[in-house]
Amino acid sequence: MQAKENAISKLIQQLEKLPGIGQKTAQRLAFYIINMKNEDVKALAEAILSAKNSTKLCKICCNFTEDDICHICSDDKRDRSIICVVEEPQDVVALEKVKEYKGLYHVLHGAISPLKGKYPEQLTIDVLLKRLADTNVKEVIIATNPDVDGEATASYLARLIKPMGIKVTRIARGIPVGGDIEYADEVTILKAIEGRKEI
Amino acid sequence: MQAKENAISKLIQQLEKLPGIGQKTAQRLAFYIINMKNEDVKALAEAILSAKNSTKLCKICCNFTEDDICHICSDDKRDRSIICVVEEPQDVVALEKVKEYKGLYHVLHGAISPLKGKYPEQLTIDVLLKRLADTNVKEVIIATNPDVDGEATASYLARLIKPMGIKVTRIARGIPVGGDIEYADEVTILKAIEGRKEI
Repeated sequence: MQAKENAISKLIQQLEKLPGIGQKTAQRLAFYIINMKNEDVKALAEAILSAKNSTKLCKICCNFTEDDICHICSDDKRDRSIICVVEEPQDVVALEKVKEYKGLYHVLHGAISPLKGKYPEQLTIDVLLKRLADTNVKEVIIATNPDVDGEATASYLARLIKPMGIKVTRIARGIPVGGDIEYADEVTILKAIEGRKEI
Repeated sequence: MQAKENAISKLIQQLEKLPGIGQKTAQRLAFYIINMKNEDVKALAEAILSAKNSTKLCKICCNFTEDDICHICSDDKRDRSIICVVEEPQDVVALEKVKEYKGLYHVLHGAISPLKGKYPEQLTIDVLLKRLADTNVKEVIIATNPDVDGEATASYLARLIKPMGIKVTRIARGIPVGGDIEYADEVTILKAIEGRKEI
């Protein structure tokens, strides 16, 4: 008899596959969706399909875009002599929110992590190196996450890029603004002291 | 230029409408969906549409079902002399997990809450009353939530059902199993004392 409740269970199963969505949340979402207006449900399903189908990688920076070249790479006002290398497209969104950085980006789509089966050749490092060889870039800012994988990726990239005569920098690690030194971990405190600046 | 990122932004907007999904989570989900395999994205979108389109309300208990009569109402082994009244379909799921209750259900689809613009006529109370008049039910267990709206709904239903000569009971309120009396609120402690039983 349980098979009769099929469509709802199937939806719950599909929602559970999404990150951060457990069984309870999936169930709550499924019941909410069933209670939504017909046109809203259609709009949601169409948005999912359309985002997937119309999104590709920018041929220059590998960020998500609907065109061959993303809106940042095709913006004449951006500084083409500097590239900020990030792990994921959402990192670009976070950096763009600050409205301070005016250079270009390069999205790796991950970080090197042999334990998670992620090797350099699975990232867009080859695209980045070709890009650096073909264009006149003066500085590469490595903005991978300050964790084990991100640091390993940063070192790996620095070793490859420095011999090309390009300046390689790493974003500062330290106590987050609004953070509390008392609760910061030791490595962060160490990095904050190492990275100190005269005021 | 931002318009070019349209499909992703649209998906983020759609996801933000879901309960408990804020801007950050919507963005994370959207990027995750774009990274999913084509067939998985299709399966997700289809599950959403299919759950919405094939789900209707059981003609007897108003629970979600794909048929005219839900699998609980059409199960011969269930005790037809007792009906458990709940606010939402997910409450039925929670009660069924206990595998103890063998009676039928009635789903109100909400609770009376004039402040939230929810009046008795918007719930399935008329269906319940007709059902009680037509069948030979001996007990109605009111399992609405033990909050202001749920209690108001329980009192309202009791006033209507008792004159029909049907026993009306309310689920017990007290300290949850594994809970801590020290941290229980006063009303819960009061209810726990009122509902005490000889051991």
